[in-house]
Order: sequence, then structure tokens, then C-alpha cells
Amino acid sequence: MASRRVIGVDVGGTKLLAGVVDARFGVHHRAQRSVVGLDQSALLDMAVDAVREARDAAGGEVAAIGFGIPCLIDQRTGTAVIAVNLSLADIPFRDVMAERLGLPVFVDNDGNVTALAEHQAGAARGAREAVILTIGTGIGAGLILRGELYRGSIGAGAELGHMVIDMDGPRCQGNCPNYGCVEALASGTALVREATRLARERPRSGLGRALAAGRDPSGPLVTELAHDGDAVAIEALTLIGARLGVAIASLVNIFNPEIVVVGGGVIAAGELLLAPARAVVAERALPPSRDVVRIVAARFGAEAGMVGAAMLAFNGLARLAEEA
Amino acid sequence: MASRRVIGVDVGGTKLLAGVVDARFGVHHRAQRSVVGLDQSALLDMAVDAVREARDAAGGEVAAIGFGIPCLIDQRTGTAVIAVNLSLADIPFRDVMAERLGLPVFVDNDGNVTALAEHQAGAARGAREAVILTIGTGIGAGLILRGELYRGSIGAGAELGHMVIDMDGPRCQGNCPNYGCVEALASGTALVREATRLARERPRSGLGRALAAGRDPSGPLVTELAHDGDAVAIEALTLIGARLGVAIASLVNIFNPEIVVVGGGVIAAGELLLAPARAVVAERALPPSRDVVRIVAARFGAEAGMVGAAMLAFNGLARLAEEA
Repeated sequence: MASRRVIGVDVGGTKLLAGVVDARFGVHHRAQRSVVGLDQSALLDMAVDAVREARDAAGGEVAAIGFGIPCLIDQRTGTAVIAVNLSLADIPFRDVMAERLGLPVFVDNDGNVTALAEHQAGAARGAREAVILTIGTGIGAGLILRGELYRGSIGAGAELGHMVIDMDGPRCQGNCPNYGCVEALASGTALVREATRLARERPRSGLGRALAAGRDPSGPLVTELAHDGDAVAIEALTLIGARLGVAIASLVNIFNPEIVVVGGGVIAAGELLLAPARAVVAERALPPSRDVVRIVAARFGAEAGMVGAAMLAFNGLARLAEEA
Repeated sequence: MASRRVIGVDVGGTKLLAGVVDARFGVHHRAQRSVVGLDQSALLDMAVDAVREARDAAGGEVAAIGFGIPCLIDQRTGTAVIAVNLSLADIPFRDVMAERLGLPVFVDNDGNVTALAEHQAGAARGAREAVILTIGTGIGAGLILRGELYRGSIGAGAELGHMVIDMDGPRCQGNCPNYGCVEALASGTALVREATRLARERPRSGLGRALAAGRDPSGPLVTELAHDGDAVAIEALTLIGARLGVAIASLVNIFNPEIVVVGGGVIAAGELLLAPARAVVAERALPPSRDVVRIVAARFGAEAGMVGAAMLAFNGLARLAEEA
């Protein structure tokens, strides 16, 4: 079955990416859609449409569909229970998609499928204990524990982005009812907010001038200016990296992992983000865990979720074959 | 080998408890020692002495010794790397004790052995995913994930007490270099500190009068007065319970556990501690995890660590027999 192909679908907070993926994780046909502002029904239509486009481009021969969605999932039923940054709630996502697409459907949290990709073929390859963080609009996460994805008792676990690091801190994003979560303080959204605040305080900085010239504040803009040496952009990334370090120090104490992998859009900042995070972990985490952990950038970039969703489908097909 | 017996030793921040335990977890001979103020060498002597007393009382027939120690452990070598609330650092504890006692020695973190006890025969029995917290001088913890104790990559994991809940909070206790850990804010030590502060503000409260009458502020005193209805003692427990709830909400998001078990000295307060913790979890954790988790008191009281250390020794002997 090495020639089998599946479709991996990464549903993000801003866009949806589908692709036909072969057993060696090569991506052959891609279809992308914007999902900004869509309600649940329009989002499902958009997903079906993107899958059909990719399938048609591949000549129709795909064995299954894997979805990574930024949502808490009840794996007992394949239900998407609640999404923090997207209009998805209380929908039997797996069954609805299987019926509309006429193929086996496997669904998991986007953080989990990204962790699958990094563990099976990326920066965490070979690790038995790994924490994989995806810093984008929100903070997604996946856990590899004893060599396997950890999902929790009903599949809703590994929401590391909703670990509180400041109990009296600001309300978290979207549908999260919590306060001071690491997602509220160290996500891409938080980076843009902090960078904008700093740029207003220092209008003559590179970022201050860019915003005054009408450019939209965004993660990529902050990162670009930081790489160019702008002090304000660097300071914003240092602040976010240090907060991320507080969260990673806790995760190091909790999991004693071999490796913490940081991916998502914000990791384009590279060492500007990771160096302050590592410094905080060295200061605040307990030995011996702090001394054995490596904190590294993800291997997979923007396609980690899609490739991981395809791996989920391949793994699901293999499980079905075993059970048959 | 059902008639085999082992010695379980619980090394706490204030006292050491050894006991001869049979295969049904019945405790037959106990030896207790104070460890307050002991340096490492005196602490080891005291442990050896207590084990010998228990062994002699049992007529000498024990097959192994299990230790639960409040220490981060490198399981590759059985080294006690660092203890937050005790004088133990960088000592090959397992090998030193095996040599001095002439028996197989198994050692694990006190939080882990307590989790073993609660999982094998206590409140978490039958659970696949369980978080076990022990609230005493510090906050110990153990994780049952996929039905087994989770230790991390080298055995130093599950330090849930050193998860930060207030990143700009007070310096943590003892040897922990961190700030705003849940141990710093919601341990028995924090309870006594907050209760004392409240009693000073309200000297006519029950606790205020008790302290003015010369009674030492302590967890048991606060709990006793709270059970008697003293508003200040109840308020202190409510505050600690709510902070514990912030930590448990994060743990619920991280692990999606079936059950969170709360033990240790402070659980003598029962619902006065657990009810505010549950209320915060209901408010702050994400569905569906918050809706499936049960938050309950531990079954084992003061002997959980000793019984769990004995279970560790039984499990270790079984593993050695399999390997032979």
C-alpha cells in the first residue's frame, strides 16, 4: 500500500490548506481557502470544496481524509466540541465530513497533527518525550509521551496554550473563558499587540515609522524589522520569548521532555524568539530536567498541519486494516 | 510470593516514616523519625536507622526497600539530584542505600509513589488518566497517563507543584529558582502564611484570638478553626482552594484527566478546600475536559507515601523477576 495517497487538511484560524499526500509525505496537489469570518456552515462547505479540488486534481484516487482542526475534540464520537479561534462548536465533524466526502475521515486537534508531523519526520524524530508548540493566532500544542501522541481521556488534552502563567492576567482569546493563559500573553496575536504598544511609545523606531507609513501591524512585519535590527521589534520578540520561556519552564518541570519544538508562524523569528525563551528556562526550571532538554525550532513550516493531518489518515487506515 | 514483605519509606519535609508492608498493602511495623534540620549525611543515617528498626521488628525477612523522597530523581542512575524542601543533592541515593542496607533498593519521587498508592488501591483506582496532587509543606505530584506512572525522559517529571501560575509572583520555596509556582502560592506553607496575614488584619476572629493566645499558626490549626466556622480560617482555605483551582484548570486543559486527586495534610480541610477549587475549574477550564473531570480527596492519608513506596518495591521486584 506504499502507493496509497490521502488528503491532509489543515484548518487554521485564518486559512484552510488541503493537499494530496503520498506515503512518503510528498505533497502533490494543494488547495487553499480563506476562512476568515466564516460561520460554521460556510466553513464546512469551504472544507468540502477544497478537499474536492485536491481530489479532482489527483485524479480521484485517495483512500482517506485527515483533518487537523484548532478545536477541542471528543474522540469518543469525533465531535468538534469548541474552537477558541474559529466558528466550530458541538458538531459531529468526523461523521458529517465522512458522509459528505464518501471516504474514511480522521480528525484531530491541529496541535496534535503538527506534533505527529514533527515526531514522525521532523525535529522531534526519535524522541520518546516531546512537547510541540505551534505559535500562531493562538498557541496550539501536541505531546509525544512514551513515543506516542497523548490525547487525554477523551481526546481533548494537550491544550498547553491554555495553561495559566498569570492568574490575574488578561482574559484569554476567543472562546476560552480563562485569564492569563500563555496563549493570551505569548501568541502571535499578543506579539502584534505588544509590538504595536511599543511602537506607539517610540514612533521614531523602525516599527513606529512603518506603522505611521500605514503598514498593518502583523507578525511577519515585526519579524522582518527585527531581523533588520529594529530595537522595538526585537524588544517585542524578546518579551514574547521570555513569556514563552515561563511556560516552557513549567512544561519542562511537568514533562521532563527530551525536546521542546517551537513552530507556527512566529518561529520565523528564530533565535530572536528562542534565545530569550531558553534563558528563562535556564533561570527558572528545575534541574536535572532543565539541563537535559533541547529547545529547538520546528522543521516543518506552514505545511506541518497538512502533512500531520495526512499522517493521521495513514495511521488511521493502518489501524482499520489491523482491526479488519 | 504473596507472602513476601518489603519496607516502604516515606521521606517527607518534616518526618520520615518506614513500615513493613505485605503484598496486600497491610502495614505491620512502623518506625518514625524527625528529619527537621538534618544535613544530608544525618538524614541518610536516620533513614538507615529507621529501616533497620522496622526490619528487626519484622524478624528480618524483607525482600526489598522502596523509598519515596521529595526530590527530583535521575532514574538512569537512581541519583537524587535536588530536593526543594530537604537537604538532599547530587547523591546516588539508590546505590548508597542498597550498599548500606544489603537489599535491593527502589527509589522514586514522593509524589510518584503517592500516585502509585492512589492508583493501585485508592481514589484513582481504575483510571487511565489521573493527576494526583499532595498538598503539604510543598506540593508533590504524580501522573498516571495511559494507566501507568509517567516519569519523563530521565525520571524527573511530574513536578506539577512547580508550574507557574503567577509569572511575576513571589520567589518559590527552598531550592526552587522559580517565581509564582503553585507550590509558592497554594501549599500548606502558603496557607499558614495567608491565614496569619488575615488573622493579623482581624485580631478578633477565631484565628486572630488563637494566635494572640500563643498558639502556633499551622495548617491543622487553620483547618480545625475552619471546621468550627471561623470566618478567617475559612477565607484562607477558600483563597488557597481558588489558587489550587487555577492550577487544576491548567492541568485539566493539559491532561484531560478522568480524575484529579488531592491529598496531603491540607486535604484535612475537605470541601472547604475542594469546593472553591472546583468552582474555579468550572469557570476557567475548557470544555469538554472540564465537564468530564472529577476532583476528589485522596483515599490514603498520612501513610500514602509509605504504602506507595512499598508498592514501588513490589513492582520493582516483579520487574527484576521478569528480567531474570
